[in-house]
Amino acid sequence: MSSRERSLWGWGWADRFPDDDTRRGIAAQVGALLGVEAPKLRTPPTLDSIRMPAPAIPVPAALAAFATDARRDRAMHAHGKSYRDLLRAFTGDFSGAPDLVAYARDERDVAATLAWCASERFAAVPFGGGTSVVGGVERPEGGAWRGVVALDLRAMDRVVVVDDVSRAARIEAGATGPRLEEQLAARGFTLRHYPQSFEHSTLGGWIATRAGGHFATLYTHIDDLLESVRMVTPRGVYETRRLPASGAGPAPERLVLGSEGILGVITEAWVRVRPRPRHRASASVRFDDFARGAAAARAVAQSGLYPSNCRLLDAREAMLNGVPADGGAVLLLAFESADHALRPWIERAVALAEAEGGRSSGIKERTDERGGDASAEAWRQAFVDAPYLQTVLVSLGVVADTFETACTWDAFEALHARVRADVERTMREACGGGLLTCRFTHVYPDGPAPYFTFVAPGRDGAQLEQWLAIKRAASEALAACGATITHHHAVGRLHRPWYEREVPSLFLESLRASKRSLDPEGILNPGVLVDP
Amino acid sequence: MSSRERSLWGWGWADRFPDDDTRRGIAAQVGALLGVEAPKLRTPPTLDSIRMPAPAIPVPAALAAFATDARRDRAMHAHGKSYRDLLRAFTGDFSGAPDLVAYARDERDVAATLAWCASERFAAVPFGGGTSVVGGVERPEGGAWRGVVALDLRAMDRVVVVDDVSRAARIEAGATGPRLEEQLAARGFTLRHYPQSFEHSTLGGWIATRAGGHFATLYTHIDDLLESVRMVTPRGVYETRRLPASGAGPAPERLVLGSEGILGVITEAWVRVRPRPRHRASASVRFDDFARGAAAARAVAQSGLYPSNCRLLDAREAMLNGVPADGGAVLLLAFESADHALRPWIERAVALAEAEGGRSSGIKERTDERGGDASAEAWRQAFVDAPYLQTVLVSLGVVADTFETACTWDAFEALHARVRADVERTMREACGGGLLTCRFTHVYPDGPAPYFTFVAPGRDGAQLEQWLAIKRAASEALAACGATITHHHAVGRLHRPWYEREVPSLFLESLRASKRSLDPEGILNPGVLVDP
Repeated sequence: MSSRERSLWGWGWADRFPDDDTRRGIAAQVGALLGVEAPKLRTPPTLDSIRMPAPAIPVPAALAAFATDARRDRAMHAHGKSYRDLLRAFTGDFSGAPDLVAYARDERDVAATLAWCASERFAAVPFGGGTSVVGGVERPEGGAWRGVVALDLRAMDRVVVVDDVSRAARIEAGATGPRLEEQLAARGFTLRHYPQSFEHSTLGGWIATRAGGHFATLYTHIDDLLESVRMVTPRGVYETRRLPASGAGPAPERLVLGSEGILGVITEAWVRVRPRPRHRASASVRFDDFARGAAAARAVAQSGLYPSNCRLLDAREAMLNGVPADGGAVLLLAFESADHALRPWIERAVALAEAEGGRSSGIKERTDERGGDASAEAWRQAFVDAPYLQTVLVSLGVVADTFETACTWDAFEALHARVRADVERTMREACGGGLLTCRFTHVYPDGPAPYFTFVAPGRDGAQLEQWLAIKRAASEALAACGATITHHHAVGRLHRPWYEREVPSLFLESLRASKRSLDPEGILNPGVLVDP
Repeated sequence: MSSRERSLWGWGWADRFPDDDTRRGIAAQVGALLGVEAPKLRTPPTLDSIRMPAPAIPVPAALAAFATDARRDRAMHAHGKSYRDLLRAFTGDFSGAPDLVAYARDERDVAATLAWCASERFAAVPFGGGTSVVGGVERPEGGAWRGVVALDLRAMDRVVVVDDVSRAARIEAGATGPRLEEQLAARGFTLRHYPQSFEHSTLGGWIATRAGGHFATLYTHIDDLLESVRMVTPRGVYETRRLPASGAGPAPERLVLGSEGILGVITEAWVRVRPRPRHRASASVRFDDFARGAAAARAVAQSGLYPSNCRLLDAREAMLNGVPADGGAVLLLAFESADHALRPWIERAVALAEAEGGRSSGIKERTDERGGDASAEAWRQAFVDAPYLQTVLVSLGVVADTFETACTWDAFEALHARVRADVERTMREACGGGLLTCRFTHVYPDGPAPYFTFVAPGRDGAQLEQWLAIKRAASEALAACGATITHHHAVGRLHRPWYEREVPSLFLESLRASKRSLDPEGILNPGVLVDP
């Protein structure tokens, strides 16, 4: 395990939090962007300064070999990484810390933890990498529990088997993105699932939350890369068979995908891997406005070309990301393959975009036997670094968050207009102003996955309320337009009110029945998704 | 509705059953193929000759507007189309006929039927197109029921809305393949989902059984074409939201896909449609043996080219289908697109196949503004006609059936050897010989979907037992090799013993819990998939 320390309160590695000069520079930029005075620097909390209740009990003998009640461990498992979490942690509120952290070394430890929790009336919170942005890994409210154990599988991080023939790998659920990619690379393969949380989130967490990754089409979610899954429930092991496909009854792995830790603890999975891409072709195409860019993205999504990248940025999103866009929208197209050169693919995609009024910057094509690609790596690094910026903004008292959705193409224009109107109005009312940007992260033949970012001035002590007003306005706008409350950020606690309106009430009943069946004592992640 | 009559006992249209001279010709061919005397012609049953108990009750007032107990209607809903069904029907055994057939005109009729069944202790069997090959639409055994109602939605067959922008259509569940394609064609679209049962099976049946279709890659099952679904359960309507994708909890449509009528009656769905393909490119590539052909199919499946057709036929399969193969295996490759010409795609696929020792017959490429393709249409016609041949074989006393599966590539060689050994030995023991063929119908990056056909001499009165011995040997071989009991033929009753070993027992518990939740009286299709 790395000796590098993660931030006590913010995103990622502690050493990535910038010094005061850098923070002042960012504050000046944000002030200029929002048309307000540069926000002042607030002081981050320390392990000594935070407020955290004592653990409910000492470490019990049954879990002593792998559990701890040490202050730092409990503090590091007190929150996810939603804006609300960052804010609470920054202001020293660690009241949600678990009483114990169990670092399971294997499935026996997981089972022992669940058994102990059931017998002692403790709740068990599968922590994954702790990167939930929806309140998915926190202490349950209500007095039904004598305490809470956070389950951390970081010690279970091996790539156990690679099947070169079927191109699949059996991987333990505690492996983070870098851990599994480094082991796969040694075998000549890659998963190429890059959620923004890649550095710290885990395979088990991806499966539990249906994480969205790198590919803009076809393999958009971890769902599409999952061959089989193994989960330890309070009633025993639930393991699906390794199959490329099946038609036997409702798919058993689909009950695990998106289960958010309420049915069991995912311990390992077989996932579909591939050789590193050797061929890449890309282009960026500029549009006068977002609507024309959306029409182009739709044409590409419906063409059967299946680009790996089909990201549409609006003018503000392009500006914030330093992507040249002439003040309009820009569509970033890319194809990648380990098998064949891609000129016919990119040429056709660019032609489709140009037919919608786009101006291409020209096609870049390259083949690299080593498989590296500096510009793709640079974009990915900027992408995974974005949460570090949010962390700085929180330390400046700024309200800053993202939300994402998916809708059918026919519904997009109205959705976009409604979200802009409602969120911008709410930012004005709650914060005196603010900035909203939009991009497409993934596209499907029948609709896009729009992703929104907002940044607004905050008032100390009022940020939670300000954020909540904006989050509510955004979620209501999505619901009103028939879009989903989340394309790849999960439900957790934050999205529950809209989730309950989105899915059939009879499905919720069925899910509750499944939960009662697999977790009869209801110890697993209470408060997330549904109440039993 | 068509006045053309469907066969009382065999596949499809009654007028397609050949005259005695043609049957004698087929008998001679089969005799030569199996190295036995040409089987004799048996006489098909008639509506007067069949044995069918009287209905349990007269048509009740609550259902009188749309239900019937007429002899022909009951007889036509007595069986699915498995070999066992054909045999039972051919020998006049219609003891499984429902007491009533309810031709629901709308969702209110469906709900009324379910309510009446619950109050009167009748079982409700959603019949779809009645093409189940796994015992999925028959009268439940056991004395728990006062009677049985077959629910037939043929009157609900409209394409209700077409969304041209999102390329999706809302279609009533009772629409057969031809009915929905003819309505979509009028709007310039096609679903292109062509299961072998296409002529008679319904959209609702496809969804309930996770039917496999036309596309060899990507859109292999109706699952992949489903945007949202609506189902009437005994507890009310279960309707998922129209979304191109979502990450909100376990996917609610996945509980409906494969539910085989045990949770509710699917009444309509939004499905993803596309313009008719204008560009086609194809090639056939011959191999000395099946293993080399399989290696080529794997290379294509893992290439990211995504052909619409990647069908590998073994020598016997090629012979039976009249496909030139030089006594070896043949790989049929095809690409289709409404958007772009496909030469780079087919060239690369052929090159991959040639690298495995294949000999290509040359690439055929064409663009047709009208969208027609005579050779593709001819193959599809031959494909949908195959069940007619099985029907004739039943009338000759021959044992003939198919089974299919999917497995990972690393497991295929052992699976193929084991299936051949076990099925051929069982055919020798039970029938004195027989013929087994194999093809791939669909391929995935991590494995193929092998499809087997067997034909063996039958002994009158012993065929059911002979068939059962072969079916058991085949199913045991699949299970022993870790393959699925079905890639796209569903579970029904016939596959239950192997289904129960395939999926996690805790998933079965969860499914039973879902069933109790949506169908508290357990009236829906009892005996299929699980017992509550």
